[in-house]
Amino acid sequence: MQQERTEIQELGEFGLIKHLTKNFEIQQASTVLGIGDDAAVIDHFGKQTVVTTDLLVEGVHFDLMYTPLKHLGYKSVIANLSDVFAMNATPTQITVSVAFSNRFSVEALTEFYDGVYAACEKYGVDLIGGDTSTSQKGFLISVTALGEVAPNQFVKRSTAKEGDLVCVSGYLGAAFLGLTLLEREKKIYLENPAIQPDLEQQDYIVGKLLKPEARQDIIQYLEAQKIVPTAMQDVSDGLSSELLHICQQSEVGCVIHEDKIPVHDDARKAAFKFGLDPTVCALNGGEDYELLFTISQSDYEKIVLNEEISVIGYITNQPEKLQLVTRGGNTHAITAQGWNSFAK
Amino acid sequence: MQQERTEIQELGEFGLIKHLTKNFEIQQASTVLGIGDDAAVIDHFGKQTVVTTDLLVEGVHFDLMYTPLKHLGYKSVIANLSDVFAMNATPTQITVSVAFSNRFSVEALTEFYDGVYAACEKYGVDLIGGDTSTSQKGFLISVTALGEVAPNQFVKRSTAKEGDLVCVSGYLGAAFLGLTLLEREKKIYLENPAIQPDLEQQDYIVGKLLKPEARQDIIQYLEAQKIVPTAMQDVSDGLSSELLHICQQSEVGCVIHEDKIPVHDDARKAAFKFGLDPTVCALNGGEDYELLFTISQSDYEKIVLNEEISVIGYITNQPEKLQLVTRGGNTHAITAQGWNSFAK
Repeated sequence: MQQERTEIQELGEFGLIKHLTKNFEIQQASTVLGIGDDAAVIDHFGKQTVVTTDLLVEGVHFDLMYTPLKHLGYKSVIANLSDVFAMNATPTQITVSVAFSNRFSVEALTEFYDGVYAACEKYGVDLIGGDTSTSQKGFLISVTALGEVAPNQFVKRSTAKEGDLVCVSGYLGAAFLGLTLLEREKKIYLENPAIQPDLEQQDYIVGKLLKPEARQDIIQYLEAQKIVPTAMQDVSDGLSSELLHICQQSEVGCVIHEDKIPVHDDARKAAFKFGLDPTVCALNGGEDYELLFTISQSDYEKIVLNEEISVIGYITNQPEKLQLVTRGGNTHAITAQGWNSFAK
Repeated sequence: MQQERTEIQELGEFGLIKHLTKNFEIQQASTVLGIGDDAAVIDHFGKQTVVTTDLLVEGVHFDLMYTPLKHLGYKSVIANLSDVFAMNATPTQITVSVAFSNRFSVEALTEFYDGVYAACEKYGVDLIGGDTSTSQKGFLISVTALGEVAPNQFVKRSTAKEGDLVCVSGYLGAAFLGLTLLEREKKIYLENPAIQPDLEQQDYIVGKLLKPEARQDIIQYLEAQKIVPTAMQDVSDGLSSELLHICQQSEVGCVIHEDKIPVHDDARKAAFKFGLDPTVCALNGGEDYELLFTISQSDYEKIVLNEEISVIGYITNQPEKLQLVTRGGNTHAITAQGWNSFAK
């Protein structure tokens, strides 16, 4: 009898996780929230602990041809801190594990850890452990972040309500445009190493890709304004993918206005130069590390004062119906085409 | 000017970690213990949280030719729980991240997670997160475990005192002999696939390699007997390597008696069959996942009743002087030749 064989790409990343974890049951009374959100929550009396982890693989998540190792170390930490902030929590500790082939020297790894250290210093978190190993091929990074939150003040993805306003921090799509630029320059370079890369006036989009920040300032602003978002997550796989998570898990729909989606002028110019639609870059481009959250309408007056926060639409009672109202006034369905490491 | 280049193997794993982390300073008041022990400790009021992490790489830490994926999943968890127990703590939650090339199917990953699940169930821990990704080559696993311990009841490596008794749980060296056996059978098979592997009466050593357990029972026994070890760590890289850690970090020495080192009869027989010295297997073989700990002499009467615990020697006031008294009465220096993934 032949053994059944299902290809991983048939399920996709989230389907696979769901499949693999479907039999796990919570056993510890201290586990307040397990798999299925940006991070897990553990109750330790005075505070609750938030835990999140990420695995980054060379050739899948990053290309060392144009990613300085220091930036890679910084970004590896930021990606996890962003998940902690997306729980409305404060990151406190991280562990960092790396595996690398023998093409890496101590100096190269030091560069990487310098970046890790810089992120730790900036965000006030402690590196408290990790592991190092050789790899058969390439560079691999696993980061776990812990954070703290006052009891039951963490914010999940599954609690957005009809009528809530959909908000996003900063600007979207720039990291994807930075990636597009660097991939283009890499191709040109490989075809003709004599040609110098043309990165003139592209600091913004390249910076958003190579040295992103996590939105601690937004969490602090929300706290100062006494706003607890009704749902929240970070934008790492593209706005459309993250909107779908919130709507699916909250069993709601949303209406998003294209003209409200924040795209930086430099990103818009770059998009036009590459013949790309800036809105599509914002919807489907990954690695923005901005925060996507929903708030009660009663909090609108407080949020509108912050120029770093855009209200882009509202939540409806139509489960999983995601709609985009274009500049021209037409309405389209939003389908998630976020970044997927299992895609061919 | 030429850039300096130091090869990683020049430093070794611990030297590298030391090098990479030397500039990190603790910033959070809640970080009670950071890098440098089996796990880190975080103070969350009622209890302290213990965190540990491991990275396992195919071709470096395991060979899928003779390691069933379910066993691999189980063992990946056990390796981390063992570190939590080695802190005198109780494991509560884990995260598991995996990266894999496209030669792995959903069924294969399910097998792996079945093993993860079995370990979680047996030890009462919750899987609370993780990440999945493709890899360029091979299978990679990153596990992080959290545990709880009553305030300041955790046990470090650095607190062994002169006169303390050196104890070890279970038997040592069997996992290394299991590995030796399977490597030998693999070689025979590759040379002639028609020959069936000869694993007769080798259940014990193969079992110790492929399905190890973490010594929860020892921690529970110590608690019941109101014994707090003066120092403790798990035996994952071989007894000599672990003794060296305790002696270096505690600034003490030790005298170990060869005839007291516990080696199982089946392991002893296998060693003789392979022409190996059982004591050398115990000293330098890895992956036993037993507990090595030191206790005050006043606790001797309590410990001697437990057949799963062997007293193998004592701590001296001679820093880093590790001595082995052989069966013949000679005294040799113990040098750590534990397993090192960076060795050529």
